[in-house]
Amino acid sequence: MGWREIILEIMREDIGFRDITTAAVIPKNMELRAEIVAGEEGICAGVEEAAHILKSNMLTVKEIMKEGTQMKEGNVLLEVSGNSRRLFEAERTALNIIQRMSGIATMTNNAVRIATKVNPKVKITCTRKTVLGYLDKKSVEIGGGDPERWRLDDEVLIKRNHLRVVGSVEECLSRAKAHASFTKRICIEVNNANDALEAAKNGADVVMFDNMPHDEINKASKMLKDSGLREKIIVEVSGGITLDNIEEYAKHDVDYISMGCLTHSVKAVDVSLRLLLGE
Amino acid sequence: MGWREIILEIMREDIGFRDITTAAVIPKNMELRAEIVAGEEGICAGVEEAAHILKSNMLTVKEIMKEGTQMKEGNVLLEVSGNSRRLFEAERTALNIIQRMSGIATMTNNAVRIATKVNPKVKITCTRKTVLGYLDKKSVEIGGGDPERWRLDDEVLIKRNHLRVVGSVEECLSRAKAHASFTKRICIEVNNANDALEAAKNGADVVMFDNMPHDEINKASKMLKDSGLREKIIVEVSGGITLDNIEEYAKHDVDYISMGCLTHSVKAVDVSLRLLLGE
Amino acid sequence: MGWREIILEIMREDIGFRDITTAAVIPKNMELRAEIVAGEEGICAGVEEAAHILKSNMLTVKEIMKEGTQMKEGNVLLEVSGNSRRLFEAERTALNIIQRMSGIATMTNNAVRIATKVNPKVKITCTRKTVLGYLDKKSVEIGGGDPERWRLDDEVLIKRNHLRVVGSVEECLSRAKAHASFTKRICIEVNNANDALEAAKNGADVVMFDNMPHDEINKASKMLKDSGLREKIIVEVSGGITLDNIEEYAKHDVDYISMGCLTHSVKAVDVSLRLLLGE
Amino acid sequence: MGWREIILEIMREDIGFRDITTAAVIPKNMELRAEIVAGEEGICAGVEEAAHILKSNMLTVKEIMKEGTQMKEGNVLLEVSGNSRRLFEAERTALNIIQRMSGIATMTNNAVRIATKVNPKVKITCTRKTVLGYLDKKSVEIGGGDPERWRLDDEVLIKRNHLRVVGSVEECLSRAKAHASFTKRICIEVNNANDALEAAKNGADVVMFDNMPHDEINKASKMLKDSGLREKIIVEVSGGITLDNIEEYAKHDVDYISMGCLTHSVKAVDVSLRLLLGE
Amino acid sequence: MGWREIILEIMREDIGFRDITTAAVIPKNMELRAEIVAGEEGICAGVEEAAHILKSNMLTVKEIMKEGTQMKEGNVLLEVSGNSRRLFEAERTALNIIQRMSGIATMTNNAVRIATKVNPKVKITCTRKTVLGYLDKKSVEIGGGDPERWRLDDEVLIKRNHLRVVGSVEECLSRAKAHASFTKRICIEVNNANDALEAAKNGADVVMFDNMPHDEINKASKMLKDSGLREKIIVEVSGGITLDNIEEYAKHDVDYISMGCLTHSVKAVDVSLRLLLGE
Amino acid sequence: MGWREIILEIMREDIGFRDITTAAVIPKNMELRAEIVAGEEGICAGVEEAAHILKSNMLTVKEIMKEGTQMKEGNVLLEVSGNSRRLFEAERTALNIIQRMSGIATMTNNAVRIATKVNPKVKITCTRKTVLGYLDKKSVEIGGGDPERWRLDDEVLIKRNHLRVVGSVEECLSRAKAHASFTKRICIEVNNANDALEAAKNGADVVMFDNMPHDEINKASKMLKDSGLREKIIVEVSGGITLDNIEEYAKHDVDYISMGCLTHSVKAVDVSLRLLLGE
Repeated sequence: MGWREIILEIMREDIGFRDITTAAVIPKNMELRAEIVAGEEGICAGVEEAAHILKSNMLTVKEIMKEGTQMKEGNVLLEVSGNSRRLFEAERTALNIIQRMSGIATMTNNAVRIATKVNPKVKITCTRKTVLGYLDKKSVEIGGGDPERWRLDDEVLIKRNHLRVVGSVEECLSRAKAHASFTKRICIEVNNANDALEAAKNGADVVMFDNMPHDEINKASKMLKDSGLREKIIVEVSGGITLDNIEEYAKHDVDYISMGCLTHSVKAVDVSLRLLLGE
Repeated sequence: MGWREIILEIMREDIGFRDITTAAVIPKNMELRAEIVAGEEGICAGVEEAAHILKSNMLTVKEIMKEGTQMKEGNVLLEVSGNSRRLFEAERTALNIIQRMSGIATMTNNAVRIATKVNPKVKITCTRKTVLGYLDKKSVEIGGGDPERWRLDDEVLIKRNHLRVVGSVEECLSRAKAHASFTKRICIEVNNANDALEAAKNGADVVMFDNMPHDEINKASKMLKDSGLREKIIVEVSGGITLDNIEEYAKHDVDYISMGCLTHSVKAVDVSLRLLLGE
Repeated sequence: MGWREIILEIMREDIGFRDITTAAVIPKNMELRAEIVAGEEGICAGVEEAAHILKSNMLTVKEIMKEGTQMKEGNVLLEVSGNSRRLFEAERTALNIIQRMSGIATMTNNAVRIATKVNPKVKITCTRKTVLGYLDKKSVEIGGGDPERWRLDDEVLIKRNHLRVVGSVEECLSRAKAHASFTKRICIEVNNANDALEAAKNGADVVMFDNMPHDEINKASKMLKDSGLREKIIVEVSGGITLDNIEEYAKHDVDYISMGCLTHSVKAVDVSLRLLLGE
Repeated sequence: MGWREIILEIMREDIGFRDITTAAVIPKNMELRAEIVAGEEGICAGVEEAAHILKSNMLTVKEIMKEGTQMKEGNVLLEVSGNSRRLFEAERTALNIIQRMSGIATMTNNAVRIATKVNPKVKITCTRKTVLGYLDKKSVEIGGGDPERWRLDDEVLIKRNHLRVVGSVEECLSRAKAHASFTKRICIEVNNANDALEAAKNGADVVMFDNMPHDEINKASKMLKDSGLREKIIVEVSGGITLDNIEEYAKHDVDYISMGCLTHSVKAVDVSLRLLLGE
Repeated sequence: MGWREIILEIMREDIGFRDITTAAVIPKNMELRAEIVAGEEGICAGVEEAAHILKSNMLTVKEIMKEGTQMKEGNVLLEVSGNSRRLFEAERTALNIIQRMSGIATMTNNAVRIATKVNPKVKITCTRKTVLGYLDKKSVEIGGGDPERWRLDDEVLIKRNHLRVVGSVEECLSRAKAHASFTKRICIEVNNANDALEAAKNGADVVMFDNMPHDEINKASKMLKDSGLREKIIVEVSGGITLDNIEEYAKHDVDYISMGCLTHSVKAVDVSLRLLLGE
Repeated sequence: MGWREIILEIMREDIGFRDITTAAVIPKNMELRAEIVAGEEGICAGVEEAAHILKSNMLTVKEIMKEGTQMKEGNVLLEVSGNSRRLFEAERTALNIIQRMSGIATMTNNAVRIATKVNPKVKITCTRKTVLGYLDKKSVEIGGGDPERWRLDDEVLIKRNHLRVVGSVEECLSRAKAHASFTKRICIEVNNANDALEAAKNGADVVMFDNMPHDEINKASKMLKDSGLREKIIVEVSGGITLDNIEEYAKHDVDYISMGCLTHSVKAVDVSLRLLLGE
């Protein structure tokens, strides 16, 4: 079914058979107009998805703010109109999507700003530590990050557990190149400088320094540069990186900084629905 | 389809056709054993749901830790075994569910502890500002909170937008009692003391003080007590309440404290999968 | 998926790949107009649902008669037009929904009329002995009844089997109040006057006299009145009540009369599709 | 999805998130045993379908009574055991299916007995005036009837509305034979003796006398016999036939009697769940 | 869900989250126009289904060529316009459906032409050796063949494996007539002349000569004619019949020739999408 | 839902409500054993998928032959046992999957053998001209080919239509590198030698020579070699390549040969179900 259906199903579970409050207190055929308004600063995301939710409940929607835009308190993101019962049924789920997606986009954007101040070429990426999968990753993109792989089948990413089973970086990469389609890039997580060098020597496209102390990162960078392999690979760094410590990681010679917190510990951006009565 | 199917669909989207990394580097019929381990303190939640995910991918699961238990770093929550490809496919989604649900349960539990220290009878409740709907609310319950209504059809909750359309608290309640089934409780949000009193006089079961300053809450409490109506209703307080300010709200004469942040701004609890090789 | 999808699926099963009769004998692009007409008296219900079915099969629909209206033989409920093959495919399922829902609404309305002649304040309610679940309960509402709980999670209803397991009315109610959300009402079935009194004393919101002889109902009513608890609870009566014996039950001091037959033994109201050829 | 999924979906809608009563008053891990017992006489049907429902909710089931068996008050149809919460969740939907399907089978069986007393060769069949589609038709079969066509694509059935559009019986049959697959039988509804004869002459496999007065039926029978075509066709009679008037229809020279009431106006057979506590 | 949903699901799997190529290189809001063009001769089929796919992805479609038409290289089958990303996402699946369905229709049509040159009354039919089920059978119809039964429940077809279990043709037919609905035709596969005669004597509607040598077919035809039963039955021939040998089979006294290859070994007809830039 | 559900849905459509033949002629509780047997030579594929189909219909399966194995007439691929009605219901769909998937694997394998005889390093790949999507591509892999991209989001593949819209190879590649995730490879179709060189110069990972005459391929190869860029890219050739002409293409300096016919024009491999009666 996919994410389009997932968010509609979340709405359906939230509605149940009907909004009994609205059914009891609001006249059946009343039409209403309303707007979704930002309650604080942030990067706008989720408007398309909220529109999908509202339209699927037979409301008319006008998207006002483009995803990726910087929003301020009071900015209108979207206008919606239609039957009052349909509106109150879909309101909450639509707001929930915007507040989460904008929260992710905003945190990503903050990470980008902090990191590029130190290292203008470095980029931010996220992990598969998501809740809503694709929508979380799309929010990272909107905030200026790279979504990394979408799922388990679009990049080879050899992780620590694979390495433990197989035994060596060389053998892992040898098998990956033999068995994976030529259309896939090959990435490998390493946690020390020697493995980083071995990975680069054995044809990894991307080498991810995972949970490595700053000293070890420096050592790996030097070994890669000295061996002349640095230009042939993409270097990514990951493991416990947050807005508080990202600056230190950005100072290294790395191409991508991967942050799990962008999608697993989201702070919602405040948005709400304002009815336009007699306006 | 419901939440059981939603989390499986999230897993299916994450897997795609197959885990190409594992398919390339791990032998096809290799069996593995592993355990899911806490990486920090918190209240355990999501183990049943993670087990549902893992089992649906044909793995054998033993649930070790009961939901609601206080967990410490290193505690084993769940054991899993089976085909290595199935294991690596389902691992991430299972962990994602546990880390979010435990995050919600942990924050709820902290709120309960802070609030009841000041006011032993007060209880914590959440809102519909959720991402995963039922699972978020279940996590609040596991943490010691009350889930409030599950959806729009199991309690009448007259909110500010309803009141704006209808015009008066009295009229809202009159309509609710006339049109809603006798099996539903009636709750109404008010934002000043006069409306609180009017709600109590007109038969509300629950009066929710929403975004009211502390002075106004005190005034409403006094008016309710003086009128002899305090005992007939349940009093709930809501609006911008977080772990930082909950103590002040708990000091009032209220029965329930409602917190949106419990489900809209979750901090994940760290959990990971540890392979048991040759153990 | 829910009831909207259930009735479409019932239609899809009925169609199969196509209506081979219409495909064989009617020209492919012929447009037709038709109306759904009542064949006998009754309360109109199911027009919205029939319209949902017809529209989903790409027909144009105009709803003529409002649900809850008294209809007479020959009254037009709905007009429909569009491709002849689409029309003949969807016709039967649309009629099936109207004839059942109107049948339920009609029987409910008869029950309301008989009961309120004797006891103007008494109301009619139904059970979960349904076939189509929500649509059956909605039909009861249209006929003037109360749908009781929608499902197992929107009211606590302690039934005989729960009581047998737990042992006492008091213990049942004590557990219900401790563990259920404050947003839910608590109802308990009793089959004798002593239990009715115990239920009222222990805080039940609703006491249901189930399968109690008329003498026992009288005894219970007296005990409740004498104890001063009658006003604090809602009294419901149930068990084998039909149009033939409802009058006797309405004479008691009860608030609600619950009737399983309204939804488990429905007599369809006759409706049919009349083609408008050359009209 | 089909009927298997439809009845599970009806159950899921009935459960919602959980049975809050059982969750509140019954210990979480309590195991229970129970049996489904007939409350009155009838033909047993729906046990397989009830078992499907119960098993899908993780209960253990033993089917005791075979479908089609004559049951008496107190007979056990099915034994079920398992977790108490799962049991109370699925109970009602399972009973609802049995009470409807047995109701249909019982009424069909009564029709068969009445009709065959007068005309030993005559058979009973039903229409597409169903609620649950296949399950209603299967119940007719269990009661000794013929289900007629399953859906719109397994028999050509030219009805009055087709005839009105096309103009003549001859043209209808000519088109049906030209365009329908050779694997399908061709049936046509007629409402007078002349059309019956025309149908037989033009190669109908089945001629259905629909809403014809007894005189006209006699006339048609005579014309068919006199023309020597009676043996080449199957004769069916339909239109407002109930248990009250079926005997009169059975006296005619007809092969099948079609009854809409078998599935559109069902009287449920009483069945209930009896807990086996300490037995 | 059915075939409409199956082909959309095939498209969804093919798209994944989005067409990353188009997203990267084509402006987001660019509108495009294009046409689907035949690359070689054949019988047109699948245009309606392709339109269903394209419209479901929010494109505007105009069907140009009717199914069943003879097409030549360069003929336009369908015009499509809309958002460029939506167009490139749906293009391939739409083409895949047309190329397969037209391939089946074209091969069927060739079979019809070859066979009817020899035997003008003979007709072509297919088997259940399909990939897409209904769509394959519909393509056979478009090419001028008969789809035979749609599925296992719309014709009784006694095959060799049934005969092996039951033991005799007579017993098979006796059971079929006793237990199957009167609305179904009865077909039986035989592999020798004696069984063919026994089938005709025992009331089969259709006798299928399966994998019988030409001599045996001749013998069976003679026995049927001599016994006077030939006119009472439909004769079908099947087993390894292809375009290469169909002429020999068409020379026999048979009504239908059944060909598995029409749907199990399809040669796609070449079609492609031509962008209309600045035209 | 995905391919697992697609093939079950295809089976469900094929069954309908039940196999009326088996229901009529075979005793209800009869158990049967059978094996699926190859009727000709080929590469075995689809056994896992057939097992999924059979098991989902409650049959017991033992997979005998591994996918990728060379099979000969009479080889047993799979054993199956269980209820006779379940077996006859699922038989055809299971066979249909094996015969198609083995057909694809066999043709792929033939292509591999022909091509590698001439050019031992060249590999075979397929296109998105599929019917069943993933299962078709998996069959290509089983036959020794590379599946190319799974769907539109796992590789950037700039095709002729993209190039026509954008204007130049350089601009296409520039946009692709700027906007696509670093985890994706970039492939571009070209139809002349100059564009091939431009693609290699501008950082394409894969250059696909599409529908280029042999002369032009030679010219492109020379230009790439002369410029020293040949080693930096993967070269793929495509366009109208079949078993008849593949040898000529294999002689070029190319890494991959892409063949649409592998999945759009499949010749089924003959397999059938053999009942084991009294064995």
